[in-house]
Amino acid sequence: MSEKGILAVVSGFSGAGKGTLMKALLKRYEDRYALSISATTRQPREGEEHGREYFFQTEEAFKRMIEAGELIEHACYVGNYYGTPKQYVFDQMSAGKDVILEIEIQGALKVKERFPDTLLIFVTPPSAAELEARLRGRGTETEKVIQNRLRRAAEEAEYMDQYDYLLVNDDLDACVEEMHRLIQSQHQKTSENSGFIADMKNELKNYKN
Amino acid sequence: MSEKGILAVVSGFSGAGKGTLMKALLKRYEDRYALSISATTRQPREGEEHGREYFFQTEEAFKRMIEAGELIEHACYVGNYYGTPKQYVFDQMSAGKDVILEIEIQGALKVKERFPDTLLIFVTPPSAAELEARLRGRGTETEKVIQNRLRRAAEEAEYMDQYDYLLVNDDLDACVEEMHRLIQSQHQKTSENSGFIADMKNELKNYKN
Repeated sequence: MSEKGILAVVSGFSGAGKGTLMKALLKRYEDRYALSISATTRQPREGEEHGREYFFQTEEAFKRMIEAGELIEHACYVGNYYGTPKQYVFDQMSAGKDVILEIEIQGALKVKERFPDTLLIFVTPPSAAELEARLRGRGTETEKVIQNRLRRAAEEAEYMDQYDYLLVNDDLDACVEEMHRLIQSQHQKTSENSGFIADMKNELKNYKN
Repeated sequence: MSEKGILAVVSGFSGAGKGTLMKALLKRYEDRYALSISATTRQPREGEEHGREYFFQTEEAFKRMIEAGELIEHACYVGNYYGTPKQYVFDQMSAGKDVILEIEIQGALKVKERFPDTLLIFVTPPSAAELEARLRGRGTETEKVIQNRLRRAAEEAEYMDQYDYLLVNDDLDACVEEMHRLIQSQHQKTSENSGFIADMKNELKNYKN
């Protein structure tokens, strides 16, 4: 089927286990996927590397990327810019890799608007009670941070319907397989196989007369 | 995920191996699927049973079904009516079965228009040459019949783009699994999980204040 990579955007509540899920998926199928790397103007934290966690940019360079149309989407949080460089994503897709962007909702919807074939996946725990339990279970956050995350989740839930697919992260291993199958099934979409369809129409034309 | 069944419509060229594929799918996952049974006004052939191959109806009874809105779609071929009874399909879906309609293209597009959540799958051999080889390989058809089928395939190919997914039937066993995965993945669509999403929004509301 289609040889060009799929663009998949993954969002979900903080505490849904997205990070662990993505790591497990990329480890299990490393030849199949590429994880998009965001550009940002925020300072690198300890252990973060340019080109691995982020492409670290000055605000001036970041603004030049915006103006040159080099970002698929971008947004500003707490005074720092974040964005998805187009080149890397398109290069990986051309090379046949399925590219995953792990970005928040507003960015995800912008990508879908611009590239309607994008697969939008929303990762969620099986229930709100489970989400709260996971946030508390970490044991590292203050009550205020937990309440903030739950409030944010309540706001984010309003956008769940705008995603194409839901992925309930209950059992990590099963969830990795579900995500893999979901993304791989997109290669069978007719819109991803216009070359195959054109060839078929063309070959069959000979029988028309 | 969603407990209600999926409605999947399967079409494809004569010679694509749809019949064998459906039989193998239903045999392998008999608890999961129900095959829709069409109503028809044509005479039963030897070995055909009312309620198994078709619901055999008089023309009068068939027209009453049309008028009463009891058919999802219907069409007339070579003087005989064919149609899909709504009741059976909806009953099976409510019982949690994924229902498969194996119907031709015009009917498929009508179903999609009326029920946009319907999954349209087009089954095709890997190439036109392979289609021709399979039609000839049967060894039971006259040259005229083979040419007619190829001409019809050429016309049908014009509608391939209007299907959601393509299924290339190269290896039967792999194709059965692909179809199964494709239909099962639809249970994760947000549009199939409005109940889950509503519950999640509702539970999270408590954290908003």
